[in-house]
Amino acid sequence: MRTSQFFLATLKEAPNEAELPSHKLMLRAGLIKKLGSGLYTWMPLGLRVLRKVEAVVRDEMNKAGALEVLMPAVQPAELWQESGRWEAMGPQMLKIKDRHQRDFCFGPTHEEVITDIARSEIKSYKQLPLNFYQIQTKFRDEIRPRFGVIRAREFIMKDAYSFHTDRASLRETYVVMHRAYTNIFTRLGLKFRAVAADSGAIGGDASHEFHALADSGEDALAYCPDSDFAANVELAEALAPAAARPAAAEAMRDVDTPKQTTCEQVAELLGIGLERTVKVIALMAGERFHMMLLRGDHNLNEVKTGKLAGLEDFRFATEAEIREHLNCPPGFLGPVGIDRSRIRLIADRSVAALADFVCGANKPKFHLAGVNWGRDLPEADLVADIRDVVAGDPSPDGKGRLEICRGTEIGHIFQLGTKYSEALNCTYLDAEGQTRPMEMGCYGIGVSRIVAAAIEQSHDARGIIFPQPIAPFGVALVPVGYQRSEAVKAAADKLYAELVAAGIEVLLDDRNERPGVMFADMELIGIPHRITIGDKSLAEGRLEYVSRAGGETEMVGVEEALAFIRAKFGI
Amino acid sequence: MRTSQFFLATLKEAPNEAELPSHKLMLRAGLIKKLGSGLYTWMPLGLRVLRKVEAVVRDEMNKAGALEVLMPAVQPAELWQESGRWEAMGPQMLKIKDRHQRDFCFGPTHEEVITDIARSEIKSYKQLPLNFYQIQTKFRDEIRPRFGVIRAREFIMKDAYSFHTDRASLRETYVVMHRAYTNIFTRLGLKFRAVAADSGAIGGDASHEFHALADSGEDALAYCPDSDFAANVELAEALAPAAARPAAAEAMRDVDTPKQTTCEQVAELLGIGLERTVKVIALMAGERFHMMLLRGDHNLNEVKTGKLAGLEDFRFATEAEIREHLNCPPGFLGPVGIDRSRIRLIADRSVAALADFVCGANKPKFHLAGVNWGRDLPEADLVADIRDVVAGDPSPDGKGRLEICRGTEIGHIFQLGTKYSEALNCTYLDAEGQTRPMEMGCYGIGVSRIVAAAIEQSHDARGIIFPQPIAPFGVALVPVGYQRSEAVKAAADKLYAELVAAGIEVLLDDRNERPGVMFADMELIGIPHRITIGDKSLAEGRLEYVSRAGGETEMVGVEEALAFIRAKFGI
Repeated sequence: MRTSQFFLATLKEAPNEAELPSHKLMLRAGLIKKLGSGLYTWMPLGLRVLRKVEAVVRDEMNKAGALEVLMPAVQPAELWQESGRWEAMGPQMLKIKDRHQRDFCFGPTHEEVITDIARSEIKSYKQLPLNFYQIQTKFRDEIRPRFGVIRAREFIMKDAYSFHTDRASLRETYVVMHRAYTNIFTRLGLKFRAVAADSGAIGGDASHEFHALADSGEDALAYCPDSDFAANVELAEALAPAAARPAAAEAMRDVDTPKQTTCEQVAELLGIGLERTVKVIALMAGERFHMMLLRGDHNLNEVKTGKLAGLEDFRFATEAEIREHLNCPPGFLGPVGIDRSRIRLIADRSVAALADFVCGANKPKFHLAGVNWGRDLPEADLVADIRDVVAGDPSPDGKGRLEICRGTEIGHIFQLGTKYSEALNCTYLDAEGQTRPMEMGCYGIGVSRIVAAAIEQSHDARGIIFPQPIAPFGVALVPVGYQRSEAVKAAADKLYAELVAAGIEVLLDDRNERPGVMFADMELIGIPHRITIGDKSLAEGRLEYVSRAGGETEMVGVEEALAFIRAKFGI
Repeated sequence: MRTSQFFLATLKEAPNEAELPSHKLMLRAGLIKKLGSGLYTWMPLGLRVLRKVEAVVRDEMNKAGALEVLMPAVQPAELWQESGRWEAMGPQMLKIKDRHQRDFCFGPTHEEVITDIARSEIKSYKQLPLNFYQIQTKFRDEIRPRFGVIRAREFIMKDAYSFHTDRASLRETYVVMHRAYTNIFTRLGLKFRAVAADSGAIGGDASHEFHALADSGEDALAYCPDSDFAANVELAEALAPAAARPAAAEAMRDVDTPKQTTCEQVAELLGIGLERTVKVIALMAGERFHMMLLRGDHNLNEVKTGKLAGLEDFRFATEAEIREHLNCPPGFLGPVGIDRSRIRLIADRSVAALADFVCGANKPKFHLAGVNWGRDLPEADLVADIRDVVAGDPSPDGKGRLEICRGTEIGHIFQLGTKYSEALNCTYLDAEGQTRPMEMGCYGIGVSRIVAAAIEQSHDARGIIFPQPIAPFGVALVPVGYQRSEAVKAAADKLYAELVAAGIEVLLDDRNERPGVMFADMELIGIPHRITIGDKSLAEGRLEYVSRAGGETEMVGVEEALAFIRAKFGI
């Protein structure tokens, strides 16, 4: 492709509303153009990238035995009413009335439609398992669309749905999909992690999220650099400290803390580590008042808390409820001397292992120091993992220490079980002629979002640095003086033709621009390899090569250029 | 692909609601599955066909220099209000309110969006011309969806939009698109015609429709087998008869026609040809009563009529209006002896050339015979082309005689001019620094509809006969006894591997079905080439080949089979 035949629409500045680097760069490089809130047109340059992502996804899905279909975007309400999600989806689902005032939606996902197909097309266990997928436009009416295509309203998703006779078959396909996703993201050149995930609203039993790692990611992840372990911070287990609780060494005493209401302030006043302080989070569950004890350097994990018996429906206590149970304002709460018949005390594993700790005194302007379990207060009613893991915690798989990073979710696989097949009566006849509900799995990839995630991982001050597999063009060929020097033009045209014949996608910049403008554009749009052809080096029989990813400029002989570039593509 | 790994969902009977052969066969072959009125899922087999159509369209559009983009399906109302089409589109446009009660639509077409992009991205004449296209899902809320994907509500369209400095540049691209469309439909193996068309609601100056020829087509077309001429019947010109009007030979006389009210009945009574009778169509335009004279074997063309000066807003006269002007009931109307000061007489060219003709006498139960212009009545106020052409009429290009056929519209190209660029203020700066509106063209292809149109053209009692370029698989490999005979299995697996390695798409039927069932399925789904492998012929070193399009079964040596099939694909 020649720039004169193409449509480059690069900008000097990104619109102010763009926050993330990927969003700014996608707008500046002219990959996308905003039509409205959460609505983007994929411009010629961006669509080339998107199509490459799609092609890798399609190829690996086909290799994994999934069959491509294409379901309508517009779906009748009746199916959603059958599954019970017509109301449950809330305003995120874009509801539509047709000319006959019948209800439809712009599909945010396709469990209902594919289950409807399966229940009418699949009769016998002999037809199973089956795995259908599509690459298709979805709409979710996000309350706050942002970050460009990362949280757009209209987006492209690869969604797959598998059907099985039993759980064992579902698990087999789940493993196949896990492997296919790993292949896809590896081929796309992404830094990613598969993490155990809470399956959330879609329901079911087991699920993994695939995250592209990025500082700007919306999710916090815990992973072990020395092993495969990775999990959403919300789900990663904080192991109990390996060492037993030390014996008490100090006497319990009041500490004057006239202005110190946080663990940080108290630790600073006393000149001790934050890990020796204990804070209280007061919760209500039903009528029961709960004190959750955490080290000053830890945070309450609400997902783990909600999974404890009796705390399924917890909420944070109001200040009035705190005063009623402890007769003390927040900031000075502690577990010593409280009425344990009215208050349930739950200690995090790390708090249960402390001796000589510091906590609130349950009276204004005082804390207690040298507090010890058993001696100064009875053991907790329950010791449990109720905190977020932090960097340095031991990995739950016992193979090292955790690191914390951030990620953007780009894939999600679920074992749905029979949630949808039972709701929609999607059954098959087994070998004994019995009617049984199908087991189902579903497997999503945020295709359009991947483009942003890749850029988020790979850019610098000059622009995008595309991984070679998804770059819009593999090579930028920049002749200096294309319209002025016949030698330059001839050399550029010859190398262009040779590279194209070798199956390499080349963008030949035949514009009448200054070299600086051409270089800046090619760098901004992230083409991995650049060859510059100028009169001076050409006179010496050489061209100039530079990699977008960095490294020194290399001089390459004119005759060697084709082989040199082919080697970069391994062809 | 092996049938055991694929999903064949063939049916013995098509649902009753399917009328057209293509609709029945697409359902029976399992290419599509209905989700709701005008909503279809493309099943794995059908999607393979659809993707091949898309690939050819994309390839030719790229070759023609168009740049692919992907615009959102959901479009804000503001753009449609700017162009004035928000109301004008009527209930065919699916309107949507988002969670903030803002108005959107599911795009039925994308003139507004692309013009919005052009007005912000294109500043200078140096950037023009440009031609953007997309292959994308559209929604038009048809009042009566039918014929499967031919008139679905949700469908896939290739829509392209070009931008130009002037009309000459627009015409150049229009010609390029006309040629690209010809290439596309030729490569897809379709019988088609490009016809001059009325540009209808989209507006603009010149347009051509591309029709796939089919008896069931919704449009009647006139074409000349001896030349390129083709036009919608509504638009094809009916030339004036070459011969001058003969001299009068008969005296005018009353004919008793007690029960004869139609030209057919009168001609039969008199034993003359229908082409010697003249009928009257009574119209009103404003307050003016019009008599339109046509030969008994011709029909009034309302499009041509509406283009005559003074008849732009014509309507058919009521019986009361007819009696008021002629004092005669319909069935006996004629042009002789009427009050020409109150009645405008318009004769079709063929009527003006008649002598000694027969027409109504303007009194009940009587006609006139031997009527002659000039002698029995004054010449008509206007002689014009007001009829539909019929088979046998001379071609307007003077190169032969017209035939009439029916077609399904699969493509449409328009010269829009400045209709949208003026409404949306889409301008550029010319070389003199003057602001000018861009000239625009638009170019559509009904991608999903093409699959049905191809089947409509090419099927028999046993099922679909796919043109090779869009067949879901190129070869059906049917081993008889695959699970019983090791020799059959080995031969089938070997040939399968060889064909796949040669880049040919093969469906190997490894099901444990009777040969008749397998043959019926492979014929129904329209695979162009079938190889049968059985123990008996294999013992003789031979395989059986048959073409889906017809022809005798051929025996092919096992060793020659690969080369034999490769030759069918020209590889």
